[in-house]
Amino acid sequence: MPRTLEIFIQALIVVCAVAFAIETLPDLSPRFRTLLWAFEIFTVAIFTIEYGYRLWTAENRFRFAFSFFGIVDLLSILPFFLSLSVDLRSFRIVRLLRLVRILKLGRTQKAVERFRIAFSLAKEEFALFFAATVGALYFAAVGIYYCENGSQPMVFSSVPHSLWWAVVTLTTVGYGDNVPVTFGGRVFTGVVLMIGLGIVSLPAGILSSALQRAREIQTEDSY
Amino acid sequence: MPRTLEIFIQALIVVCAVAFAIETLPDLSPRFRTLLWAFEIFTVAIFTIEYGYRLWTAENRFRFAFSFFGIVDLLSILPFFLSLSVDLRSFRIVRLLRLVRILKLGRTQKAVERFRIAFSLAKEEFALFFAATVGALYFAAVGIYYCENGSQPMVFSSVPHSLWWAVVTLTTVGYGDNVPVTFGGRVFTGVVLMIGLGIVSLPAGILSSALQRAREIQTEDSY
Amino acid sequence: MPRTLEIFIQALIVVCAVAFAIETLPDLSPRFRTLLWAFEIFTVAIFTIEYGYRLWTAENRFRFAFSFFGIVDLLSILPFFLSLSVDLRSFRIVRLLRLVRILKLGRTQKAVERFRIAFSLAKEEFALFFAATVGALYFAAVGIYYCENGSQPMVFSSVPHSLWWAVVTLTTVGYGDNVPVTFGGRVFTGVVLMIGLGIVSLPAGILSSALQRAREIQTEDSY
Amino acid sequence: MPRTLEIFIQALIVVCAVAFAIETLPDLSPRFRTLLWAFEIFTVAIFTIEYGYRLWTAENRFRFAFSFFGIVDLLSILPFFLSLSVDLRSFRIVRLLRLVRILKLGRTQKAVERFRIAFSLAKEEFALFFAATVGALYFAAVGIYYCENGSQPMVFSSVPHSLWWAVVTLTTVGYGDNVPVTFGGRVFTGVVLMIGLGIVSLPAGILSSALQRAREIQTEDSY
Repeated sequence: MPRTLEIFIQALIVVCAVAFAIETLPDLSPRFRTLLWAFEIFTVAIFTIEYGYRLWTAENRFRFAFSFFGIVDLLSILPFFLSLSVDLRSFRIVRLLRLVRILKLGRTQKAVERFRIAFSLAKEEFALFFAATVGALYFAAVGIYYCENGSQPMVFSSVPHSLWWAVVTLTTVGYGDNVPVTFGGRVFTGVVLMIGLGIVSLPAGILSSALQRAREIQTEDSY
Repeated sequence: MPRTLEIFIQALIVVCAVAFAIETLPDLSPRFRTLLWAFEIFTVAIFTIEYGYRLWTAENRFRFAFSFFGIVDLLSILPFFLSLSVDLRSFRIVRLLRLVRILKLGRTQKAVERFRIAFSLAKEEFALFFAATVGALYFAAVGIYYCENGSQPMVFSSVPHSLWWAVVTLTTVGYGDNVPVTFGGRVFTGVVLMIGLGIVSLPAGILSSALQRAREIQTEDSY
Repeated sequence: MPRTLEIFIQALIVVCAVAFAIETLPDLSPRFRTLLWAFEIFTVAIFTIEYGYRLWTAENRFRFAFSFFGIVDLLSILPFFLSLSVDLRSFRIVRLLRLVRILKLGRTQKAVERFRIAFSLAKEEFALFFAATVGALYFAAVGIYYCENGSQPMVFSSVPHSLWWAVVTLTTVGYGDNVPVTFGGRVFTGVVLMIGLGIVSLPAGILSSALQRAREIQTEDSY
Repeated sequence: MPRTLEIFIQALIVVCAVAFAIETLPDLSPRFRTLLWAFEIFTVAIFTIEYGYRLWTAENRFRFAFSFFGIVDLLSILPFFLSLSVDLRSFRIVRLLRLVRILKLGRTQKAVERFRIAFSLAKEEFALFFAATVGALYFAAVGIYYCENGSQPMVFSSVPHSLWWAVVTLTTVGYGDNVPVTFGGRVFTGVVLMIGLGIVSLPAGILSSALQRAREIQTEDSY
């Protein structure tokens, strides 16, 4: 497929994702909705032609049809045709399937490949530190439940409910919807934050360094 | 003990921790509570057999009984038997003791060992920077108390109360329950954040690098 | 231009920026406003003389007039003279143009040059990781919209509205104006935070390291 | 001075700081207040004797009296004696002066020396990046003022008021007291966060690395 056409299709996918977001706006005029619908038909037509072309020109058609991008290509047009025959429009999940198209962006870009390398490089570390994160969140939730349940039974009503507090606090997002008020709960929060911040922020740090190592590997390979 | 049994017991400990969390949910049906109680009896039975087996097959039974994991094994089944004879169910702390089982996960995993190495590596640094953190929190609390006590006597009612604000702000959690409103308090917050962020986030950074060094040491040892 | 005059003009620009901020205070006395107006006339006079001097002493006057700092110099005095002839005072944007003067600070300082080097060094990385950030924010917004729209139709009313939540959460600012309340939404938030924190914080990290590399390059050049 | 006495005085300083914090609690019994007052007299007595001893045993008494720790020693006891003759109790600032004692902790510890080395090492970098931080905060405040002033004139009433929002947002504390609500304001916040996070978090990072370098220098010197 020529380079310009490739870029056109990639741009179309990005525009599709934007259109998908706009479509969810609650106060759109019926006219604009019709326009979006027309654009949807246009893009599906393009993607169907693209799929047919790729299948036709593939060396091994069977292998392409069951390859990762072959399935992605199919999944990104199938929901539209299904919605014509069966009334699937009510199922929200069908609309989400259209987002599969975004994965097609990865066909030519090195970024997706890099993420794949990064994950395989730091596989073991990810597993270990995600376990540590889950452990830290669990202990934080149990502790705050025992400290705060007495004075705020509606907010910290159980360990699973307190887990939400643990996630919001240890990632330092701190929405402020669940806040410890007892003396014990606040001291516990202080201690947990000092220790937990390091553990919860580790997977993010590992991802960063793994992505950089993946980039160096790609740079070396290109020489 | 055979490998598969080892994995089965470790999986059981994780399921136990999940059951412990579910048990705290306030709106469980009596039927489900009975189910959880039955599961509790089942797990205690397994852990009792395991403890007996380990004690029996130990080279030195006395040493095992007073070793770290020997005491953990005992503590994880004792509360159940005590609650049968004496009515301890009302004591919340007894239920928490059951979580001691999670420490048994560390028996075969390298992660716990790694944490132990990491802490002994960075012992001195931890002590120093935790002192710096405590100092930064203390000064932030004193400063905001003097700035804000006049206009918000209920929120920043004393230095210990302001310490909660200092913890929430310097870790950048920022719940928004205590917020400076005076000009002086806001300028002070800005200055404290610029300086304090570096100090409070240091222990987390030290833990990260210590864990990585500990991992390298373990990797070298395995060769 | 002598060194002391250079420093005087730079100090004047900083004072101008402060005056610009003070001018927006809603409860200024008319007398103080007059004072600020007088100061404005004084600074414009200085900057006009400076512009004239630079234009006069430039080797190639035409090239200076169309150089970056030549245009900046002109833009920082032009709004004042335009506001005298035409009534532009109502246009807010005209007042903002005065801030262009701050760019003149970069004339002698190495900092602006360093930022320029840093950006050209990490150009490719910035593009890639900003794309990843935009992707992460988009997926977070789509996910939370499908999880929360049912129970909070006013807050998470569409994907573009949810994007605000995604920005506030993944940067860990966490204002608390939009908070997930459903079980699915909270689990999704937890997963997104674990993965997304690493991606969204990457551009900041790249900027840091690029600025440091730029500093080393500048240090080497000076020898 | 013997080592045990040194440690006793350092412990006393820490207890003093804790007592200072407890004293601000609003609902203390008169009896406990009397106790704290008695403890205050006791500590001042000890510190006075210590000051006298140090002054007496100093090689050059005049030099000690005007040395850093000589002045700190004097400042930590002076407020008490002044409050006996003149009625200074109403002046809050006098009580704060007692905290000067904490600086005495630095006499024997290496930590304070390390901070001094760290600051002199990274002096130039601190100056530069603090300037960048101030610049980023200023631009964020100006931008949000122009975006939000129209719809929230009470919250973003001027650039100096918006500066508070800029500090709270760019440090990712995010209290949620000032939140942009307009479309423009939210887009601006997103852009500013992407760029600003890197700049504002830099001084913290520089402090970390400078402290580590300072530690290496101290370790080398001790050999």
